[in-house]
Amino acid sequence: MDQEQLRALLDDVRAGAVEVDSALERLRHMPFEDLGFAKVDHHRALRHGMPEVVFGKGKAPDQVIEIAASILARSPNLLITRVDAAIADRLVARFPAVEYFPLSGAVRVWRDRTVHGKGKITVVCAGTSDMPVAQEAEVTAETMGNEVEAIYDIGVAGIHRLISNSARLTAARVCVVCAGMEGALPSAVGGMVSCPVIAVPTSVGYGASFNGLAALLGMLNSCASNVTVVNIDNGFGAGYVASLINRL
Amino acid sequence: MDQEQLRALLDDVRAGAVEVDSALERLRHMPFEDLGFAKVDHHRALRHGMPEVVFGKGKAPDQVIEIAASILARSPNLLITRVDAAIADRLVARFPAVEYFPLSGAVRVWRDRTVHGKGKITVVCAGTSDMPVAQEAEVTAETMGNEVEAIYDIGVAGIHRLISNSARLTAARVCVVCAGMEGALPSAVGGMVSCPVIAVPTSVGYGASFNGLAALLGMLNSCASNVTVVNIDNGFGAGYVASLINRL
Amino acid sequence: MDQEQLRALLDDVRAGAVEVDSALERLRHMPFEDLGFAKVDHHRALRHGMPEVVFGKGKAPDQVIEIAASILARSPNLLITRVDAAIADRLVARFPAVEYFPLSGAVRVWRDRTVHGKGKITVVCAGTSDMPVAQEAEVTAETMGNEVEAIYDIGVAGIHRLISNSARLTAARVCVVCAGMEGALPSAVGGMVSCPVIAVPTSVGYGASFNGLAALLGMLNSCASNVTVVNIDNGFGAGYVASLINRL
Amino acid sequence: MDQEQLRALLDDVRAGAVEVDSALERLRHMPFEDLGFAKVDHHRALRHGMPEVVFGKGKAPDQVIEIAASILARSPNLLITRVDAAIADRLVARFPAVEYFPLSGAVRVWRDRTVHGKGKITVVCAGTSDMPVAQEAEVTAETMGNEVEAIYDIGVAGIHRLISNSARLTAARVCVVCAGMEGALPSAVGGMVSCPVIAVPTSVGYGASFNGLAALLGMLNSCASNVTVVNIDNGFGAGYVASLINRL
Amino acid sequence: MDQEQLRALLDDVRAGAVEVDSALERLRHMPFEDLGFAKVDHHRALRHGMPEVVFGKGKAPDQVIEIAASILARSPNLLITRVDAAIADRLVARFPAVEYFPLSGAVRVWRDRTVHGKGKITVVCAGTSDMPVAQEAEVTAETMGNEVEAIYDIGVAGIHRLISNSARLTAARVCVVCAGMEGALPSAVGGMVSCPVIAVPTSVGYGASFNGLAALLGMLNSCASNVTVVNIDNGFGAGYVASLINRL
Amino acid sequence: MDQEQLRALLDDVRAGAVEVDSALERLRHMPFEDLGFAKVDHHRALRHGMPEVVFGKGKAPDQVIEIAASILARSPNLLITRVDAAIADRLVARFPAVEYFPLSGAVRVWRDRTVHGKGKITVVCAGTSDMPVAQEAEVTAETMGNEVEAIYDIGVAGIHRLISNSARLTAARVCVVCAGMEGALPSAVGGMVSCPVIAVPTSVGYGASFNGLAALLGMLNSCASNVTVVNIDNGFGAGYVASLINRL
Amino acid sequence: MDQEQLRALLDDVRAGAVEVDSALERLRHMPFEDLGFAKVDHHRALRHGMPEVVFGKGKAPDQVIEIAASILARSPNLLITRVDAAIADRLVARFPAVEYFPLSGAVRVWRDRTVHGKGKITVVCAGTSDMPVAQEAEVTAETMGNEVEAIYDIGVAGIHRLISNSARLTAARVCVVCAGMEGALPSAVGGMVSCPVIAVPTSVGYGASFNGLAALLGMLNSCASNVTVVNIDNGFGAGYVASLINRL
Amino acid sequence: MDQEQLRALLDDVRAGAVEVDSALERLRHMPFEDLGFAKVDHHRALRHGMPEVVFGKGKAPDQVIEIAASILARSPNLLITRVDAAIADRLVARFPAVEYFPLSGAVRVWRDRTVHGKGKITVVCAGTSDMPVAQEAEVTAETMGNEVEAIYDIGVAGIHRLISNSARLTAARVCVVCAGMEGALPSAVGGMVSCPVIAVPTSVGYGASFNGLAALLGMLNSCASNVTVVNIDNGFGAGYVASLINRL
Repeated sequence: MDQEQLRALLDDVRAGAVEVDSALERLRHMPFEDLGFAKVDHHRALRHGMPEVVFGKGKAPDQVIEIAASILARSPNLLITRVDAAIADRLVARFPAVEYFPLSGAVRVWRDRTVHGKGKITVVCAGTSDMPVAQEAEVTAETMGNEVEAIYDIGVAGIHRLISNSARLTAARVCVVCAGMEGALPSAVGGMVSCPVIAVPTSVGYGASFNGLAALLGMLNSCASNVTVVNIDNGFGAGYVASLINRL
Repeated sequence: MDQEQLRALLDDVRAGAVEVDSALERLRHMPFEDLGFAKVDHHRALRHGMPEVVFGKGKAPDQVIEIAASILARSPNLLITRVDAAIADRLVARFPAVEYFPLSGAVRVWRDRTVHGKGKITVVCAGTSDMPVAQEAEVTAETMGNEVEAIYDIGVAGIHRLISNSARLTAARVCVVCAGMEGALPSAVGGMVSCPVIAVPTSVGYGASFNGLAALLGMLNSCASNVTVVNIDNGFGAGYVASLINRL
Repeated sequence: MDQEQLRALLDDVRAGAVEVDSALERLRHMPFEDLGFAKVDHHRALRHGMPEVVFGKGKAPDQVIEIAASILARSPNLLITRVDAAIADRLVARFPAVEYFPLSGAVRVWRDRTVHGKGKITVVCAGTSDMPVAQEAEVTAETMGNEVEAIYDIGVAGIHRLISNSARLTAARVCVVCAGMEGALPSAVGGMVSCPVIAVPTSVGYGASFNGLAALLGMLNSCASNVTVVNIDNGFGAGYVASLINRL
Repeated sequence: MDQEQLRALLDDVRAGAVEVDSALERLRHMPFEDLGFAKVDHHRALRHGMPEVVFGKGKAPDQVIEIAASILARSPNLLITRVDAAIADRLVARFPAVEYFPLSGAVRVWRDRTVHGKGKITVVCAGTSDMPVAQEAEVTAETMGNEVEAIYDIGVAGIHRLISNSARLTAARVCVVCAGMEGALPSAVGGMVSCPVIAVPTSVGYGASFNGLAALLGMLNSCASNVTVVNIDNGFGAGYVASLINRL
Repeated sequence: MDQEQLRALLDDVRAGAVEVDSALERLRHMPFEDLGFAKVDHHRALRHGMPEVVFGKGKAPDQVIEIAASILARSPNLLITRVDAAIADRLVARFPAVEYFPLSGAVRVWRDRTVHGKGKITVVCAGTSDMPVAQEAEVTAETMGNEVEAIYDIGVAGIHRLISNSARLTAARVCVVCAGMEGALPSAVGGMVSCPVIAVPTSVGYGASFNGLAALLGMLNSCASNVTVVNIDNGFGAGYVASLINRL
Repeated sequence: MDQEQLRALLDDVRAGAVEVDSALERLRHMPFEDLGFAKVDHHRALRHGMPEVVFGKGKAPDQVIEIAASILARSPNLLITRVDAAIADRLVARFPAVEYFPLSGAVRVWRDRTVHGKGKITVVCAGTSDMPVAQEAEVTAETMGNEVEAIYDIGVAGIHRLISNSARLTAARVCVVCAGMEGALPSAVGGMVSCPVIAVPTSVGYGASFNGLAALLGMLNSCASNVTVVNIDNGFGAGYVASLINRL
Repeated sequence: MDQEQLRALLDDVRAGAVEVDSALERLRHMPFEDLGFAKVDHHRALRHGMPEVVFGKGKAPDQVIEIAASILARSPNLLITRVDAAIADRLVARFPAVEYFPLSGAVRVWRDRTVHGKGKITVVCAGTSDMPVAQEAEVTAETMGNEVEAIYDIGVAGIHRLISNSARLTAARVCVVCAGMEGALPSAVGGMVSCPVIAVPTSVGYGASFNGLAALLGMLNSCASNVTVVNIDNGFGAGYVASLINRL
Repeated sequence: MDQEQLRALLDDVRAGAVEVDSALERLRHMPFEDLGFAKVDHHRALRHGMPEVVFGKGKAPDQVIEIAASILARSPNLLITRVDAAIADRLVARFPAVEYFPLSGAVRVWRDRTVHGKGKITVVCAGTSDMPVAQEAEVTAETMGNEVEAIYDIGVAGIHRLISNSARLTAARVCVVCAGMEGALPSAVGGMVSCPVIAVPTSVGYGASFNGLAALLGMLNSCASNVTVVNIDNGFGAGYVASLINRL
């Protein structure tokens, strides 16, 4: 039952063609999607400034291109994460507006550049090896309509580099902090700023880093109260939540 | 070197009693705290509407009472988490304004009830056993100056209870979602709302819940993009970050 | 919005007092529970022959008694799991029909003994220490209206005891197999019978049993294709699913 | 000693050619398989509508072909799981009746299409990446003589898609639910249906999904009582048990 | 069906009172234990010089006493492991021949002291905290009829103590080596002797010993080829296997 | 200080050229190996019937060939484990007596075939995928001078195949049992035989087998008292210890 | 053979009463300890300024007192770690020189206060809950003859407190850094100082701290190159190694 | 604000052009790096005798060459770890002074060979497979200006090889001990020497070594008090800390 059918039913009730009890019964079992639920999703997409973000990894090249075409047909912007170079080349060849970010594997069309965020999102990473994850967060936040500033390579073992960036950090409305190995940077940044900090553990490290587990546990146990955590290497999720917060 | 010493140095420079090069050298090694750093912390506390929150667990009764007295001497509000009943009784006896929340063990003085948050924080929990953690989040957020609404006992296995609360959920500016066992509720709530969701895994469960590990992993892997996670049972952290976001 | 309000709305539509467009909008956001959703739960409870099963652990004595009274007011049967002796005594004192099973901590009122199952559910356990879990499964399945047979103490290290029970095992319509330590019994039973086997790892063991983890992993890796697994010590869940299957 | 030998022995006893004591001794040590145990397996295969299912992974191409030939010589149907494309090509070339399902790697000959199941098995998956596992469950259940319906891509974060499929879900006699990442779908489905739900964690995800561990733990801790669990990615096992249940 | 029934059946066959086909059918399903299988267990017990060893932990006092009485009625010897002092006192009071070993909680009656072992079993432990586990191994091996020598407190960090015991170690026919913490001693002993070494990880330690996991993993990875491993704290199992080997 | 130096020192003492106190001091710090300690190792090798076994994995081809040449120069037999086909081809080309076992990657020269074992070593494996590990155990035990019998493909889910092999199993002096997945076979075999059982978990399986961890934990928790365990896939270690035991 | 026997042997050699070859043979098999090995330990104890440190946990009161008496009979100093108050009271009552440190449970006699360390050992801890571990390190280092400075409560989330202590930190010759929760402090301190940093993870925390595992992993993955790690809560070990380094 | 700006500010204060209060305020927020913080790092580098060590793994060839050029422009020495052969070839081709160590992947320029260490650093490894990690430690320590001695292949299972090297071990001022598998060697070495021992677990092993976890846990639980631990395979870190200690 879609909206037209619902309207028809109500018209029939109004016209006396359908009894109230009978209408009541039909409405009780009315499936939700028939009320145009996809439209709600559509509205949400418009509200967020971007359609559903596509997770590219594991999808076949043709699938990715088909999805991209479908989204671009109804949306000015597009974001696909974790795409390898071969697929990116095909996307670039097909859609002239496509940008490719090889470090993170993000692919973007960014035609509607309306700014929705009310402040600046600062994306920090501990080492150069964490840059792919940081870039995924940056591209996500930027495409969703935010001013984004990136600060790279300021780990806790060089605490003065951190201190020297305090002005830039405290200027942020939301911080995204990416770190592998011991994952200590979000605690240090969290202690320096008053805004929410979204911590992204990365799989950077070896041995007892256990592919990001050490950083993940460290961030979950942060002694800074303003830190929340997303999955290992989930730069997209961090950029997405940062954007939601920055729109508030 | 405190501010007085710094002022004296600058006076000497102005008076020509100290050479610029000599002053320069002394300033390069100037320790930070002597610049009144504690005051910055003090300012931050005022800005947040509450002083440093005290983690009560493991502290001796006398310690807790001394800290409470010290904070109440300079602040209208007080929040101590995870206090057992014996200590709470002593606090209530000593400070008439103290409220005790036995479920979560929170102790509060809430004299300055200024509202700082711009919207409503909704705290949701999956089962009645998750209520202690939810309460800790609620008391934290409320004491920090937010309107808080609580919705209890709406797990994913009773999805219609969840749906029937959708209006209340979508009215939130930030959601805190507490769940133990499989920890699936944040994903479901995350899919229903557009605002940030802070997920709190709880240690509720047995067997392969491994004291909250199952819920924690579930939340970190949430397929809803607007979910971030805090430590197991960390209701305080969730309420704190929700409050930071709600002030934006 | 409950059914009365919905009826009133439809009456207004019929009477022309409310526009179709306006009714349409209100219906789109209609919360589900207001349509009498709790009744669905009620119907399901009746269909299963027992009301919602109460997990007693961690509930206060007064809570348990209040819930028991509430259920017994509308249902002939009652099942509460993991109740300690003190609470059980109070329940027995208050409700004369109550049976207490100290090994598993189950409490039951079993007034409606209608048989719903189409065959026999056989509950097997590897060692005497697994009996509490097995008993929880038995009481659950029995109270839900099934013929239940129990076979105790037939571990894989005494394979001939297993073989000698093959007639009883193959007579089952569903098997529940509880085992701790290495958790090998479900594989052995699974190879002997053609029916579904529900494996329950128990926390029985020490050292590298890691509180049931070894048994859990063993059962998940069973080389018998007819084995599915529930949580460690979850005798209730196994008995419940076995009952669902036996009603088919 | 096979049945013929056993009969001969009994004939000799009857004829007085063998003493009772001597027969007794021989019977005490009679190995079981000599009673035609393989035949029992054969009978079970017939009863299940399909011979032993072959796990193709790790087997050499020649081995797989030889086994396929051997099974097809005595059975109308054949099911091999997890076969790569090269082996599948050789099977298709050799046996014209072979179907290949590239997503899951299943290979099938389905000549005897007798329906044994009494109802419908519904196979659900949370995301498109879970489809290989779902397909393995579908092909298994279908080949074993069941009506199978598949519902793809209805995760808990899009709860309305789930609700909108409730009619199809409640029509099932058994549900198989495949999900990776947080593995929350079985709980949600379990709460919507009254039938048994077999949950299959998949290795879909990254970071803290730990190759399916997060989903596995989530499912084991499901708050829905009608959920049992099989190994990570074990679509075959789920389809097999679903089929056993559906025949009851 | 026991042997008498089997004999009766064969008599009937001989007498023509039962048809061969009918006997054949009954024999095909004949349960094994009815052939006197328990006797085999009994024989094994006699062969090993001791009846089934009882795991005392978790058994009720009355249960333990009843089992002890039952075993002592048919066996000269008795071994119960992990009994607490209260139960031990009752056993000593009831059965005058009982010895109690408080360190390990073993209880023994050792009336038949026949030596079955062909050489000496040497039980080594790394630190004094490992002595309870070592004692369990010693009492087990001794009661099963072996000469046992114990060497305490020779960890790898005091390698010269180890070297100075080399003569005693090389005199062993089997070694049992108990160690907690890093669990390195079995490797060192294994390199010094040519005989089989049974390694017992103990739960002695703290922090990253994870209740014996560190020792267990260390022993499983021993670079000495003559080392096999039993469960954490399983002194009984080590003593048992050592005894089996020493009888060869 | 070698033996010649030691003799010279003693000669000097005898001749009065060195004071007793001075000799005493020098002897206290005398390094052990200079007393010909390597000879002890040499003796042990001879006693075991084979020189040091070489772990081939990770060694360069030239290294393996050089070591093989060195060993064959002083020993009739040679055993190298885990060699890939390319290196094996080179070994076969260079040393005509070399045998290669591709399943396990073992390489052997077996010129001295003296039997040292006093009975039969039976190597059992649960599934055909466990055969590489079983073969490593067989080749090791055979080359060390034992009669070895192999029984393949008798898992616990086909318990009658196990029973039907009971005569062969009970004829063993030592059993080696290899199993992956749930690793339940050693418990079942352990219950059927009286001799020591050496359990080898294999990495066969997928999902929650966690590369052999499930099987390892299962075996460590075996309820059969005669089971000890070696590292995952360590067929060599099992064959080696079985051989030590069989020589006793 | 002790030194007297060795001297006697050498005297016999000198006197011609024993042949050189015969003496040579006896010396080859001379066990090490008979050369007075305990004395070597004794020498080492003297060299370190303290006798063997006693791990008090798990020892019986009488054992602890006996050991203390034995050590104090031959040494001016005594250190026992992890003693509870009851035992400490008895020690204080018996030995007037005993000091008790209730926070860490350390017991000390410190009569010989010679300073052996060449610089200052600085013991830092992140939070007040880490103080018991820090105190154990301090008492150990002090008793071993070092100047020790303690800095409490400077976690990474209050980075300015850390910076403000930089002068005290850089004045250390060795740093011991104790931290629970995310364990980030050693990285931050390590980046500020040039000296070796010994990191001690503590079990302080809850939830995903997993009793110190999070801190341990964080420290092992420290991005500061001058950090090494000891076991969780092992303040003693850290103080001991710091002392060894400070004596160099 | 850099030093020039600071000097200008002070000049203005002196000249009366800026008020003291105003200068005070600006100085309070002065970022640290503007005071030339990088120079501090530079000084530290000079003090340590080598510039920042580069972790080569995961860096692009061009990046590595550029960094190498940059460092060599201002430093006589260079150390890059974990470089593959292709990058090493390019470095050797470009910078004639470059040495490549293929086993560990280290690349070095060692023009300034000043000895800074006060004694000898001894690097020990348990097996030949641990040599890459040992080499990384050796090259690091040597390049940092230390005399380094290496002892290979002395595992605890050949304890006499260890004893025979005791003179070389006790001659060390610091020991680095690398071991995989059970990781027992640091305990044994730690018991033989009085100096600090830095333990490096290696990922050498298979099965339950879990890529070095077994060795790591073993070393953290070492019963030798003089052992500290670094990350799995972290030869560089061990060599670095050993060098810091040896300079003291």
